[in-house]
Amino acid sequence: MTTTTRPPEPPRYVHGYSPYEARRLGDQADTLAGLLHGDTAYPPGSRVLEAGCGVGAQTVHLVAGSPGARITAVDVSPDSLAQARARLTAEAPGADVAWYEADLHELPFADGAFDHVFVCFVLEHLPDPVAALRALRRVLRPGGTLTVIEGDHGSAFFHPDSAYARAAVDALVRLQAAAGGDGLLGRRLHPLLTSAGLTDVTVTPRTVYVDDSRPDLVESFTRNTFTAMVEGVRDEALTAGMMTAADWERGVADLRRTAEGGGTFHYGFFKAVAVSPR
Amino acid sequence: MTTTTRPPEPPRYVHGYSPYEARRLGDQADTLAGLLHGDTAYPPGSRVLEAGCGVGAQTVHLVAGSPGARITAVDVSPDSLAQARARLTAEAPGADVAWYEADLHELPFADGAFDHVFVCFVLEHLPDPVAALRALRRVLRPGGTLTVIEGDHGSAFFHPDSAYARAAVDALVRLQAAAGGDGLLGRRLHPLLTSAGLTDVTVTPRTVYVDDSRPDLVESFTRNTFTAMVEGVRDEALTAGMMTAADWERGVADLRRTAEGGGTFHYGFFKAVAVSPR
Repeated sequence: MTTTTRPPEPPRYVHGYSPYEARRLGDQADTLAGLLHGDTAYPPGSRVLEAGCGVGAQTVHLVAGSPGARITAVDVSPDSLAQARARLTAEAPGADVAWYEADLHELPFADGAFDHVFVCFVLEHLPDPVAALRALRRVLRPGGTLTVIEGDHGSAFFHPDSAYARAAVDALVRLQAAAGGDGLLGRRLHPLLTSAGLTDVTVTPRTVYVDDSRPDLVESFTRNTFTAMVEGVRDEALTAGMMTAADWERGVADLRRTAEGGGTFHYGFFKAVAVSPR
Repeated sequence: MTTTTRPPEPPRYVHGYSPYEARRLGDQADTLAGLLHGDTAYPPGSRVLEAGCGVGAQTVHLVAGSPGARITAVDVSPDSLAQARARLTAEAPGADVAWYEADLHELPFADGAFDHVFVCFVLEHLPDPVAALRALRRVLRPGGTLTVIEGDHGSAFFHPDSAYARAAVDALVRLQAAAGGDGLLGRRLHPLLTSAGLTDVTVTPRTVYVDDSRPDLVESFTRNTFTAMVEGVRDEALTAGMMTAADWERGVADLRRTAEGGGTFHYGFFKAVAVSPR
């Protein structure tokens, strides 16, 4: 079953839907898989919902970590869903995933239909994350778990430090806020989940730290994930008058510099696991 | 042997030497012991130097983690050394620690006198950390290890977010810079150690994350360590005209707010282990 119900004014996804962006999300997911997903394993036969699967960047890891789980993946964007299906076909050909086009606020599932719900890099784009969490809680059986993973762009710091680079990151945060989201959501996971009525809320930081001794992370995280994400909002930031073009270019150059000799980079993700009250 | 050699203009220690500050450092060390020191254990009989032991807040953990190691503790402040000796007598009465009053740039030890050197929360207060690291490397035998632990105040973020609280933290960083130090040093450990000629430099982030589920950390870290540290530079910050008194009080109140219901706090330490080249 597929529903095409949409909210009246769907929040804008600040990172866009370009092929370049899909590749960036793929890079990000592969690099961070162990850090973010290594401790997520659902039992065979359990009913698992991934809400907001996007292009399937996390879905492949969900499938890999939980062989035998019955995974349902939902996204509001039909294009993203098509890419997710193609990705799974290519990267996890035997995986049995049920795909639904749906808004996570109005899921086409019965109350308590899932044993576990998983949501990654989604809440940060929604105007009312507590409402979203309540909608997810509805389809979670009592005693089932909700897992939420989010970043927090305020956690980004680097060497060499640069006021221009910080301003470029801040512009991304402000654009995301203007689009109804919150790029600083990671730090709020505990109170958000508590407000949504979940219990046993446990949040753990998942810190990415990069220096010359980790050339793979320099390339895949500092350069191809974080810096690429900031570069992706250039036109919006300049159109909004948040920075001059010259300052923006200097900020991006300074971010790139952190991926060169002697540079370092720090970013903090947060992973929450909570229980639906019995 | 005790030397009283001092540098011509000793860098000012931004946090001061008050009894309140000594208690704060004790709280900090106890709470963070597992996170920062849990993986430091030197073999019995090995010669270990703690450079800049201060009031002994870390020395007690060094002693506890390495029973049988021959620990030498050095500090430039005779008052701090006296407090450190008293602390060890009270908290680790059987510990055999040799105490020296000395500046770590001019240590009264022969080249290669130690198998391991340990330095915690010291480099951030020195005007030339690479020179300090070279002086420590001199007394380390080839193949011996140097362990460095530092914070990075730019890693502090919290919920609820507050521009006033961020400004107060920034004032601390600027005061520390004006005193010749660097409160953002943690992120630079890898390039600093590399520049000082150490090899096999491995830096790992040690992230402190605090929310309502960790009331002990709310009290000991958010309130009694970090917020207390910021509050400790109030007079200097106001005298320097960095903030108005009203803005300062609001910033501190907002920091305190992060230790109340629904608040969260994030701080990043870094631990480096490196080897003296053979």
